[in-house]
Amino acid sequence: MYITQSLKRSAQVKSNGLATKDGERSFTWKQSLDRISKLAGALKTLGFKTGERAAILSLNSDRYFEALYAAPWAGGIFVPINTRLAPPEIEFWLNDSESSILFVDKNFSEVALELISSGKIPSVKKCIYMSDGDIPEQMEGYEEIINSSEPIEDSLRGYDDIAGIFYTGGTTGRSKGVMLSHSNLVSNSFNTLASFRFESTLRWLHAAPMFHIADITGVLTITQLSGEHYFIPGFTPDGVLKSVEGYKITDTILVPTMVNMLVHHPEVTKYDQSSLRQISYGASPMPESVILKAMEVIPKCMFVHAYGLTEAAPLLTVAGPECHVLEGPLAYKFKSTGKPVAGVELKIVDKNSKEVSRGTVGEITARGPNIMMGYWRQEELTINTIRDGWLHTGDGGYMDEEGYVYIVDRVKDMIISGGENIYSAEVENAIYQLDAVVECAVIGIPDEQWGETVHAIVRKQPESKMTEEDVITHSKTLIAGFKCPKSVSFRDEPMPLSGAGKILKTKLREPFWEGHDKQVS
Amino acid sequence: MYITQSLKRSAQVKSNGLATKDGERSFTWKQSLDRISKLAGALKTLGFKTGERAAILSLNSDRYFEALYAAPWAGGIFVPINTRLAPPEIEFWLNDSESSILFVDKNFSEVALELISSGKIPSVKKCIYMSDGDIPEQMEGYEEIINSSEPIEDSLRGYDDIAGIFYTGGTTGRSKGVMLSHSNLVSNSFNTLASFRFESTLRWLHAAPMFHIADITGVLTITQLSGEHYFIPGFTPDGVLKSVEGYKITDTILVPTMVNMLVHHPEVTKYDQSSLRQISYGASPMPESVILKAMEVIPKCMFVHAYGLTEAAPLLTVAGPECHVLEGPLAYKFKSTGKPVAGVELKIVDKNSKEVSRGTVGEITARGPNIMMGYWRQEELTINTIRDGWLHTGDGGYMDEEGYVYIVDRVKDMIISGGENIYSAEVENAIYQLDAVVECAVIGIPDEQWGETVHAIVRKQPESKMTEEDVITHSKTLIAGFKCPKSVSFRDEPMPLSGAGKILKTKLREPFWEGHDKQVS
Repeated sequence: MYITQSLKRSAQVKSNGLATKDGERSFTWKQSLDRISKLAGALKTLGFKTGERAAILSLNSDRYFEALYAAPWAGGIFVPINTRLAPPEIEFWLNDSESSILFVDKNFSEVALELISSGKIPSVKKCIYMSDGDIPEQMEGYEEIINSSEPIEDSLRGYDDIAGIFYTGGTTGRSKGVMLSHSNLVSNSFNTLASFRFESTLRWLHAAPMFHIADITGVLTITQLSGEHYFIPGFTPDGVLKSVEGYKITDTILVPTMVNMLVHHPEVTKYDQSSLRQISYGASPMPESVILKAMEVIPKCMFVHAYGLTEAAPLLTVAGPECHVLEGPLAYKFKSTGKPVAGVELKIVDKNSKEVSRGTVGEITARGPNIMMGYWRQEELTINTIRDGWLHTGDGGYMDEEGYVYIVDRVKDMIISGGENIYSAEVENAIYQLDAVVECAVIGIPDEQWGETVHAIVRKQPESKMTEEDVITHSKTLIAGFKCPKSVSFRDEPMPLSGAGKILKTKLREPFWEGHDKQVS
Repeated sequence: MYITQSLKRSAQVKSNGLATKDGERSFTWKQSLDRISKLAGALKTLGFKTGERAAILSLNSDRYFEALYAAPWAGGIFVPINTRLAPPEIEFWLNDSESSILFVDKNFSEVALELISSGKIPSVKKCIYMSDGDIPEQMEGYEEIINSSEPIEDSLRGYDDIAGIFYTGGTTGRSKGVMLSHSNLVSNSFNTLASFRFESTLRWLHAAPMFHIADITGVLTITQLSGEHYFIPGFTPDGVLKSVEGYKITDTILVPTMVNMLVHHPEVTKYDQSSLRQISYGASPMPESVILKAMEVIPKCMFVHAYGLTEAAPLLTVAGPECHVLEGPLAYKFKSTGKPVAGVELKIVDKNSKEVSRGTVGEITARGPNIMMGYWRQEELTINTIRDGWLHTGDGGYMDEEGYVYIVDRVKDMIISGGENIYSAEVENAIYQLDAVVECAVIGIPDEQWGETVHAIVRKQPESKMTEEDVITHSKTLIAGFKCPKSVSFRDEPMPLSGAGKILKTKLREPFWEGHDKQVS
């Protein structure tokens, strides 16, 4: 059980079929396999040793795809780097993972050169330049090292060997490296195949960032079916629409913000989208209005609401096309994140890890061969997160009688006021119903009497005259009094976001909690 | 990763959905889980210890389904017993596996009682009677022990722990126990899900014998999707047709003989078969005329040709519905056994285990998480069969340029004459084209000059006047001279068959090889 097996099988059973297409470049499975085995050979020649880490800092491309496979083929571990990070954060990821190889494309070569020449990333021994054109000094040319290398045999690392380290955790503090083994990633592929309706003629568009586990699931799962991979450097509504029409894309994964931009694009219906069979979405809450619009604008496409997290490699639950209906027994079930997928055990528990009854909110926990090996070099955190074999996700939610799971909030964003649990998402949903609200975040702030009280931070329309009192009064018409904000602050600038687009409540809480005990991360 | 996980998930997400229906009896997933956890509790009370074996000797039923899950739930191993065995063979399987529990239904209670009272199966401590009605003395009543037991927690045995021992090997000598772990069986389920097009509304008919890995794949895979299980005691064309119509069966697996009987049944078109979506077949060669007839008689049904073996848990290759066409680029590809499925590595090798080129016949080998742990208590045989991680199947075949695998023969049935490899199946195919041939088997017999020569054993139509010379002359019109039989013997009685319906060439070879060196088993 190892991730490159599917690549070899594709080269065996679909040798001359298209594997990757990126702009003018396209490769068959046989060619792709050949290039990856040579790239792996080149890595070895560059001194890359078994178990070492190769970081990738690049926009999407076929070469990203190849690098993801070449690292484990050579016996090592890939480390995808979030492309939205500031240089100090890139530095932290590279040093924490002690990466010895760094793949960069032209968009990040300057940052990389600065980090290298200032001696800030001492573990990086070689830097491989993934773009065409002049190769920066101190870097190796991507095509050059492939061309000058002999293919090597697969290392056959597999099962519990680590295949990738994925950094995560932006919303709740300092990044941590999630170690996913070959078994984790392969199991997740098969869980995905069992719960998604893919056809064998499959054309996947890599539009969501490839550094994220969601699109890497696309890499690994679509390769299991020997489907075709298409790449655009990054998401733009135009880029997606043109690719769908031009390449007759059948499947892709997007985050809700991307779906929103896509379906509200003025020319969305001018493009031919008839090839689209399935769009999956997840990673953050999907506004109801957006998915309804999507179902209206791309009516023949199936939509799949997926929930998971990096620590679960990532898939946990799926609300498939059967839930994206407005009538019948499953009407509006897309509001749930669906049922636990085949292969995954999921249980919602109270703070003593005891299963709660249906309909009761608790922490979502999961068990199975897809659950991470642990956090890279953070044993204590690992022990606190995987307890008795169960991954404690930190997400609060409940399961209904039929087995559908509803995410309510991050457990860490839960506010405990006078002994009552208050889920910030519930309060935010109430406040969002005010038309003048552009963005809103609800947090707990210290209170001598209640421990915490509910505080809302609101960004409103520039012209709005909405007051603190308006927000509180409005909330009381929708939710119980103890859940309503006791205070409201307004801000003009956008909320601080993590790389995955989630509001960083840690940062919002900081000024309120200075000098207090509560752990804010 | 453990086989009862899918059962628990089904009870979680489809609690009140139908799990099993057997005649008048039907249970929801919640009820089924409850019964299985109680049956497991009963097994413990009866003294069944972790790692012990529970044999099942019964025709198909919902209780067979329950027993298959209860044994691993209680921490033990199930051992399905071929229902076509003679008492001494049953005795051998029970003793070889050292089973401590024996499940039997009314059809086998007499045999069981005889074996017990004669002291021939000393390991069996308790015998559980699976049928309704009077419980034979010395046996425990199935419903009685469930009713008097409390449910117990799942043992959580999994991964490399053995889940089942499957006896096999009838065609090439003494039976051997194939040890399949939880990982083997779960991996095979997911490989199956990835290569078959199942819908979520799935009604599976257990008509093929449940002691065979093929139908047990149905048990485990359909449960992953929380599909509905229907049972008939054993295959009859009437039974299948009535069940399909009555229960609106969507999917099943049959062996070619069964498909043959089904599609030639005089009333096949009188039954409503419109619910049928997919029939898979395998385990022995499918005559072209039979599958063509099936495609004609049940035109809306998809057909899937699967190849595998117990040692691979079992699936290796699949020729799906896209291969069951008479026109276009994939016309008649159903004659192949299809391509290696996702999750399986397959390689065709020469006698030095080196991969042969496309189109060249060699031995089929396979690697992956589905490959057995080994043969029960037969270390040497295990080492000879799994070499360098690759299962050597003993099947001869070749792969074409596109990756389709064609099975030619058992490697052990290959005849080596004057240094030339001759595949008996090829010769048999030639001889079968004579109308008067009812059955035929080609074997190698000792020859001083050539080592072996080709000998054909033929059962002809009673009225036929066909001679040895006719067979040889006919063969020469179809295949190379060195492959043609040098001698032919005729027999009136049917060929000796294994439990799986394969011709036992070992037995046919025996009289010819007495006093010679060649290993005939």
